[in-house]
Amino acid sequence: MENCLFCKIVKGEIDSEKIYEDEKFLAFLDIFPATEGHTLIISKKHYENIFDIPGHELKEVISVVKSLSIRIKQVLKVDNINLINSSGKIANQEVSHFHFHIVPRYKNDGLDINKWCQSKTYKADDEELKKLAEKIWNNL
Amino acid sequence: MENCLFCKIVKGEIDSEKIYEDEKFLAFLDIFPATEGHTLIISKKHYENIFDIPGHELKEVISVVKSLSIRIKQVLKVDNINLINSSGKIANQEVSHFHFHIVPRYKNDGLDINKWCQSKTYKADDEELKKLAEKIWNNL
Repeated sequence: MENCLFCKIVKGEIDSEKIYEDEKFLAFLDIFPATEGHTLIISKKHYENIFDIPGHELKEVISVVKSLSIRIKQVLKVDNINLINSSGKIANQEVSHFHFHIVPRYKNDGLDINKWCQSKTYKADDEELKKLAEKIWNNL
Repeated sequence: MENCLFCKIVKGEIDSEKIYEDEKFLAFLDIFPATEGHTLIISKKHYENIFDIPGHELKEVISVVKSLSIRIKQVLKVDNINLINSSGKIANQEVSHFHFHIVPRYKNDGLDINKWCQSKTYKADDEELKKLAEKIWNNL
């Protein structure tokens, strides 16, 4: 897609530090890394987000994510990672082209993935949670 | 596994507000929701993390994640989500039993997934990034 940063990376119009490539997917290092080895895995085809990418490609990309997590584990000697997908602008997706982040985590790296959702300090009301679960379960 | 919170939920020893269940996976609402509809998807079998869960089950679980994302989108009228997996204690995994978070995102919900990694303000050194990419690509 024209003017899509990741499509330009796929086409080679913008450089990236690749760590994996096959016919359908590409992985490269984030130039604004949260930690050393922070990697982005993208579909080569332009899908916007998790709603848009076909199921079979999503299954393939998660396999790539797992393989790369293992490789990063071996090379960087880290056995802790965060895996993130943001789907949609309101979900803070910065580039509207499907991607997963792999963020290797190091002892005392000063990060805490749970801190971003600060309302985690509130416990949900039992009755409201029950009603909501029924609504979603029954697709109402 | 004994003393595993999620294994107890699978066995029904601890209640949960389920929104999906099949032979291998279970999804229920987080009782400390970041937003309304915050869901946890777990494997019924005790795997610790992304390194531990077999590839074929990971592919199956991501399909469940996609289906549930679509259902949450329909029911809660949200088309923005964050998907998170934390693998390992250093990665802030709170329950050592494989799970994905689906966090539905709402306009003005006050959250920002990108804020958790504050070092995002630093651009990586080009040469260092290149060396690192080569190291990972070549599995050195």
